[in-house]
Amino acid sequence: MISLSSKLHEECGVFGIFGDDVMKPASAAYYGLFALQHRGQESCGIAVSDMGVLKCRKDMGLVGEVFSDKDLEALNGHMAIGHVRYSTMGGSCVENCQPFLVRHSKGRLAIAHNGNLTNAEELRGELALDGAMFQTTTDSEVIAHIIARERTRCGSMEQAVANTVKRLKGAFSMLVMSPRKLIAVRDSLGFRPLVLGRLGNSYIFASETCALDAIGAQRIRDIEPGEIVVISAEGINSIRDNCSGVRKICIFEYIYFARPDSVIDGIEVHASRIKAGRLLAQQYPANADIVIGVPDSGLDAALGFSRASGIEYSVGFTRNNYVGRTFIKPEQSQRRASVDIKLNVLTPNIRGKKVVMVDDSIVRGSTTVNIIKALKKAGAKEVHVRISSPTIHWPCYFGTDIPTREELTSNHNSVDRLCRLIGADSLAFLKVESLCELIDSKEKTFCDACFTGNYPDRQG
Amino acid sequence: MISLSSKLHEECGVFGIFGDDVMKPASAAYYGLFALQHRGQESCGIAVSDMGVLKCRKDMGLVGEVFSDKDLEALNGHMAIGHVRYSTMGGSCVENCQPFLVRHSKGRLAIAHNGNLTNAEELRGELALDGAMFQTTTDSEVIAHIIARERTRCGSMEQAVANTVKRLKGAFSMLVMSPRKLIAVRDSLGFRPLVLGRLGNSYIFASETCALDAIGAQRIRDIEPGEIVVISAEGINSIRDNCSGVRKICIFEYIYFARPDSVIDGIEVHASRIKAGRLLAQQYPANADIVIGVPDSGLDAALGFSRASGIEYSVGFTRNNYVGRTFIKPEQSQRRASVDIKLNVLTPNIRGKKVVMVDDSIVRGSTTVNIIKALKKAGAKEVHVRISSPTIHWPCYFGTDIPTREELTSNHNSVDRLCRLIGADSLAFLKVESLCELIDSKEKTFCDACFTGNYPDRQG
Amino acid sequence: MISLSSKLHEECGVFGIFGDDVMKPASAAYYGLFALQHRGQESCGIAVSDMGVLKCRKDMGLVGEVFSDKDLEALNGHMAIGHVRYSTMGGSCVENCQPFLVRHSKGRLAIAHNGNLTNAEELRGELALDGAMFQTTTDSEVIAHIIARERTRCGSMEQAVANTVKRLKGAFSMLVMSPRKLIAVRDSLGFRPLVLGRLGNSYIFASETCALDAIGAQRIRDIEPGEIVVISAEGINSIRDNCSGVRKICIFEYIYFARPDSVIDGIEVHASRIKAGRLLAQQYPANADIVIGVPDSGLDAALGFSRASGIEYSVGFTRNNYVGRTFIKPEQSQRRASVDIKLNVLTPNIRGKKVVMVDDSIVRGSTTVNIIKALKKAGAKEVHVRISSPTIHWPCYFGTDIPTREELTSNHNSVDRLCRLIGADSLAFLKVESLCELIDSKEKTFCDACFTGNYPDRQG
Amino acid sequence: MISLSSKLHEECGVFGIFGDDVMKPASAAYYGLFALQHRGQESCGIAVSDMGVLKCRKDMGLVGEVFSDKDLEALNGHMAIGHVRYSTMGGSCVENCQPFLVRHSKGRLAIAHNGNLTNAEELRGELALDGAMFQTTTDSEVIAHIIARERTRCGSMEQAVANTVKRLKGAFSMLVMSPRKLIAVRDSLGFRPLVLGRLGNSYIFASETCALDAIGAQRIRDIEPGEIVVISAEGINSIRDNCSGVRKICIFEYIYFARPDSVIDGIEVHASRIKAGRLLAQQYPANADIVIGVPDSGLDAALGFSRASGIEYSVGFTRNNYVGRTFIKPEQSQRRASVDIKLNVLTPNIRGKKVVMVDDSIVRGSTTVNIIKALKKAGAKEVHVRISSPTIHWPCYFGTDIPTREELTSNHNSVDRLCRLIGADSLAFLKVESLCELIDSKEKTFCDACFTGNYPDRQG
Repeated sequence: MISLSSKLHEECGVFGIFGDDVMKPASAAYYGLFALQHRGQESCGIAVSDMGVLKCRKDMGLVGEVFSDKDLEALNGHMAIGHVRYSTMGGSCVENCQPFLVRHSKGRLAIAHNGNLTNAEELRGELALDGAMFQTTTDSEVIAHIIARERTRCGSMEQAVANTVKRLKGAFSMLVMSPRKLIAVRDSLGFRPLVLGRLGNSYIFASETCALDAIGAQRIRDIEPGEIVVISAEGINSIRDNCSGVRKICIFEYIYFARPDSVIDGIEVHASRIKAGRLLAQQYPANADIVIGVPDSGLDAALGFSRASGIEYSVGFTRNNYVGRTFIKPEQSQRRASVDIKLNVLTPNIRGKKVVMVDDSIVRGSTTVNIIKALKKAGAKEVHVRISSPTIHWPCYFGTDIPTREELTSNHNSVDRLCRLIGADSLAFLKVESLCELIDSKEKTFCDACFTGNYPDRQG
Repeated sequence: MISLSSKLHEECGVFGIFGDDVMKPASAAYYGLFALQHRGQESCGIAVSDMGVLKCRKDMGLVGEVFSDKDLEALNGHMAIGHVRYSTMGGSCVENCQPFLVRHSKGRLAIAHNGNLTNAEELRGELALDGAMFQTTTDSEVIAHIIARERTRCGSMEQAVANTVKRLKGAFSMLVMSPRKLIAVRDSLGFRPLVLGRLGNSYIFASETCALDAIGAQRIRDIEPGEIVVISAEGINSIRDNCSGVRKICIFEYIYFARPDSVIDGIEVHASRIKAGRLLAQQYPANADIVIGVPDSGLDAALGFSRASGIEYSVGFTRNNYVGRTFIKPEQSQRRASVDIKLNVLTPNIRGKKVVMVDDSIVRGSTTVNIIKALKKAGAKEVHVRISSPTIHWPCYFGTDIPTREELTSNHNSVDRLCRLIGADSLAFLKVESLCELIDSKEKTFCDACFTGNYPDRQG
Repeated sequence: MISLSSKLHEECGVFGIFGDDVMKPASAAYYGLFALQHRGQESCGIAVSDMGVLKCRKDMGLVGEVFSDKDLEALNGHMAIGHVRYSTMGGSCVENCQPFLVRHSKGRLAIAHNGNLTNAEELRGELALDGAMFQTTTDSEVIAHIIARERTRCGSMEQAVANTVKRLKGAFSMLVMSPRKLIAVRDSLGFRPLVLGRLGNSYIFASETCALDAIGAQRIRDIEPGEIVVISAEGINSIRDNCSGVRKICIFEYIYFARPDSVIDGIEVHASRIKAGRLLAQQYPANADIVIGVPDSGLDAALGFSRASGIEYSVGFTRNNYVGRTFIKPEQSQRRASVDIKLNVLTPNIRGKKVVMVDDSIVRGSTTVNIIKALKKAGAKEVHVRISSPTIHWPCYFGTDIPTREELTSNHNSVDRLCRLIGADSLAFLKVESLCELIDSKEKTFCDACFTGNYPDRQG
Repeated sequence: MISLSSKLHEECGVFGIFGDDVMKPASAAYYGLFALQHRGQESCGIAVSDMGVLKCRKDMGLVGEVFSDKDLEALNGHMAIGHVRYSTMGGSCVENCQPFLVRHSKGRLAIAHNGNLTNAEELRGELALDGAMFQTTTDSEVIAHIIARERTRCGSMEQAVANTVKRLKGAFSMLVMSPRKLIAVRDSLGFRPLVLGRLGNSYIFASETCALDAIGAQRIRDIEPGEIVVISAEGINSIRDNCSGVRKICIFEYIYFARPDSVIDGIEVHASRIKAGRLLAQQYPANADIVIGVPDSGLDAALGFSRASGIEYSVGFTRNNYVGRTFIKPEQSQRRASVDIKLNVLTPNIRGKKVVMVDDSIVRGSTTVNIIKALKKAGAKEVHVRISSPTIHWPCYFGTDIPTREELTSNHNSVDRLCRLIGADSLAFLKVESLCELIDSKEKTFCDACFTGNYPDRQG
């Protein structure tokens, strides 16, 4: 069996709903967050506004663990925002859970946000010098401080948010809930997804369309990069001062993060993965008996490879669906090779075969080594590895948990050398130039900085 | 999104290990039970024998929830048995968890068992009249009583077990641990699987080979129907007095219960499901654009159907992997159709297509109705349903949780009528006569009573 | 501050009620057990009979921790029995919690019992040889086995109980609940208390009268030693075949175990403690400024000493009421003297004073050493220790957790030597001959075996 | 049995230690808070400074419930502050637990505080207008904001604290921990106690001396009203700019709140209660057979009454020590009188007696009604009630949870009328003029505003 531990991680997902004509907003948020659970499994929370009074329930744990019937009953209100969180280093504690609620001079405010500010430390320093005090280590608290201060100076919450956004750098798809308004914001490059939907007379914002499907809502459109959408009893209103038409969606949303049934900025995620497999088959054909994918994220690309190459699609692994947060691994250090737990090779399918194995990425390389070792042990004659993304070389400042450059195996090894190191018979990565094709785009409307080092916020 | 609630359920899985030369037995049992978790998610337990002293830890919950590092540390011993349990009606309480430990006149005894006795009530009555007292409602307690009584009369535990087995009717794959011996028993028709493996100098028994793989052990052979295998410091010994060569393995182990990477009685489970799909394609071809499977158990047969028919294999659904035991469903009664949670249709793949949808069985029919409704709503032009098992008509007395005859939709509806009821464009079930082919058998070496009403223990 | 850890422990308390005209039986049991909590803090449980169906809720923990509103709501029924438990060595686990429920040939049975059988091992052996199987290490299971066997042979539950009682040796105040009857039994020497009360038309059994007070019930009378009282829809009935008129109530119930507001076998516990203090003052006067008691059990005797001697009653210690089961003691091993936690000396009352300190017993002596050290540190000029019980020399076979003879300090030291060891200025114990006076008895109607070694069940 | 629910409540207790030469600071705080548990049972917390890094563990619950061995192990550091909390209306949630930790421009800060600001809302408003943002509803957050802002302007933490204190009105005994300093502050009237102690080379601050005793520390002196004491590696330093020599300690600390073994501002609490009883006996003698106290806080005054009057001191009630936070009260609404749970009358002591019953205060009067009813039911011939404090008429703004004026029974009833209402044969309260004598003071060095309405902060 094989470990799957060294994957990249997304940092968050958000959900918001204004209106209770079809469902109780807290219930809608519950289902929505559940559908977004793949974007963050560490903590979750839901805040509601009940006749102007904000309430919140949040804790460490999965959506199904944190919320009881009683919790949802208590969360009355005509709107709600919710959040699921995966956290990087050090910040894994209940204080950092979102939504983040504060009181300021003009009332209350709740924030749920996905992404990473690149100037958070700078802003934190400025605020502290001005007397601000911090109780968490989150970007959300920094943003809340600025909104709170702006709000003392300007006439409306949307204006305070608009002023705030001008000071923020980096990636953020963010929901702000005041007692009577629900405001959605997407940074001017649109690194992280954010979609608008509708259910009856209620409006919904969500990181991905799968959260709309979860409550039977219809997708209206994606929030534009730089756009601020304000929903209140008066209706829906959009502020586009900050929209430049430039788009830099994180390409890894398509390759790995998003759920395959989601549609992001108009592009079907599943289809983009099928296409990645097709491109690999065209660019790096292999002489093999079967094509298999590494579950779950490699399966779609493997199917695309099979279709383009005509090589039979087969099942290489059985995945154990029961690995939860509390799973311990007794004696594992001594016996890594044999007692890993998430994947088991389906030996009869592999024995004596020349295999194309498709996966979504190679980060540290250790997982791939183990998987290939297991395939060879099961009797694979050859293992040809095809990766549906380019080689990763650069850190991400926009909310993906990419390890240090030191840890990225592609910074130490050429593809040839890496092929030998992981024990593969051939190895190929999707070409950087092919990324456009994944999303049917002629221009580079996405961020590929982790592959190229071209950070979109540093460009002209 | 679509509910997946009305599936059949297996009742249990067992694991046993004698020897600690490679791994601590409790740790091995932990990994083994984790791999068998699909056989029972309600409760689990591990008992060890430490220099003749038996200890046990068991509780309601998944393997990953019940056992802490500390629990496993405390479970010292040179052998262990473990159990995962799914329970039918009424018996869902901590008293009924297994392994079941007792003290008797000659010492201690632990039992873990998978299956259902058909004469449990009769035996319980006889024992009670003889003064026996019961603290649980399990078959295990009945068996333990008989062993305990036999043990006062005969010279060895294996003899007591052998005498006991003669009185038991029905299905049982059972592990008995005395302070110094580990004994495996399989009923004379072999309804439930039980396999023998080896890791270093340690012997292992498990319900399925995937549990052997989980600890890096090698499969030696399946326990024969009627066989008793005794392992002690003196080595391994087999009692075959009760072996008649007849085999009646539950065919649903291949169709649905077992993990696809397991090999049961020498037959690969995944391969038998691929074959079921092939047979359906040959027997009931369809004019369609794509073939999809209902996750997870319909996927293999769908792939077989695609291969035999040449129709493109596609992905019809995204499965949410985070539905756990604590998931609640607020407001669901009002909004069943839209807020179900486990499956979401991958609309772009379905829209405008003629679809073959493969699933493993139809029990009550309600799940199938919802799935087809969702496919049609996503724009499927036609939905041709192919079921990789025959129609179910009869209850199971051997450990499968089949509902009453009343609830089985095939007892009320012809296939044609059912096709209209579920809203399919065509519907076909695997032929009963084809079941032999699933396991490459010329004779009927399996139990198909749920399809035919021919209960193997009532024959000749 | 001073530790109070080395006290004697009572093993159990029982409560039963037949009838629901005034209160729900489970609620009554809850309040009753709460009032009996001092008799056992390790585990507790309540079983009810609902139209002949027995149900039970039991777990480790205090009454206030184990039972939720929901638990009590679920425990419907027209009668209930309950139990609080303190366990000696090894048996502290959920399996051993009471009440103990079993199924036998004629139905169901629940037992709650207080006391210790002296022939439990012998009975267990006989039963095992006859094929009985044991799942716990409790006397209750032994008793249940015998009742279950007797019940197969005789026409009524009360007859089965009566036959069973004849085989039991030792101490037991026991409640047996069958689907339609509530039966109370007290061993023929009446070691442990058991009282009958009434609330409206409901009958109640309880270890102490304070449990009757807790629900507003009236005491009718104590169950006689050897008596069996049967309550059913037909009314109350008494079987006295086994009553010999001999009484051997544990004298420590008066000295320490029972709550001071209880009345046991007609004698007020508080009054007997006041009297013990008076006797000490008369027998062993002291020249002192104040009399103080060690909380809580020494306070009453201290008051008695003060009244008889005319020496001023004062407060020597403040007790911390918040020490619970989960209290940990970091760093205590290194710093025993200073960081003990339950008691703090009220220094201003002690400074410069000659003090009479009254406590209920000296077991190992270590607690007394610490207390005297603390009083001297607080400035006591002299400390005269008066113990309201004789010196303890013998083990108890009847349900009191007295340590081994080795550990009893009075087996190694004369009173004079012990006085020097504990650092007291004088030390005296109540005379064995005075015990009669505590309960206003002319004969020895109590067990004093722990002081004298005269075990009442070995006499005559 | 009798309820004790309608008592006054103290709001908090604090503990701080600088130095780890004798004990680990977190362990010392654990023992110290445990001794202060009577000052707040709702939540508790400990923060440490480890080489300048602040860490905290806090949660709802008792000290013994919140902290595990593992928690204390993780709380390394050379100093610690801790807090126990009782909260009034609305604020009972984990966010409001203390100590309160923040990051500001110059580093980190932890606060634990006891008392109530009277200008908190005003300060909160000013801060909010200046852009401050609030995450809790506590005074502590307001104070932290001001300190954080002051700290950006001035050169040291002690100066920031000194500047802050000038803006605060009301009652506060407060500990501030920066990475390298421990600072204690007491408001200029000294409403709440705060004492300085020493253990080896470590300094300790605590609300009461009983917390010093708990770790074997010596009391040095009380912090003066208005004093700021700063402890760092450089030693101990005192800032007395704000000390005016005026003292207004809350007199209820002596009457009821503090533990009897504590010494507050040099006065022994137990002795002051004995004296209150003596004064009552002198001012309001009674013709009675016995004097009893209502446990626990009425016992000392009852003893004083007995000594001054010569009437025999007796025990009127048995208290159940096991009532915890989770105790439920099934069916109580219907049966209030009989199934209350904390106190049971010791009937034999009461029957036929003329009784003086001493209690510390009458707030709503309902408790007293129930107690007298129970005494009369137990056969008391007469019940003469003596209260060791004056009648309560006014709210407290300084941290005592006194109900509204409406709810205070003394605002609706003369003493005579109240006597009849509660069913007593006579009733008397301590004279306001006698309060000075409780603490051996000639001047009014205490706050008695709840009796007189003379709020010390509004005078001259």
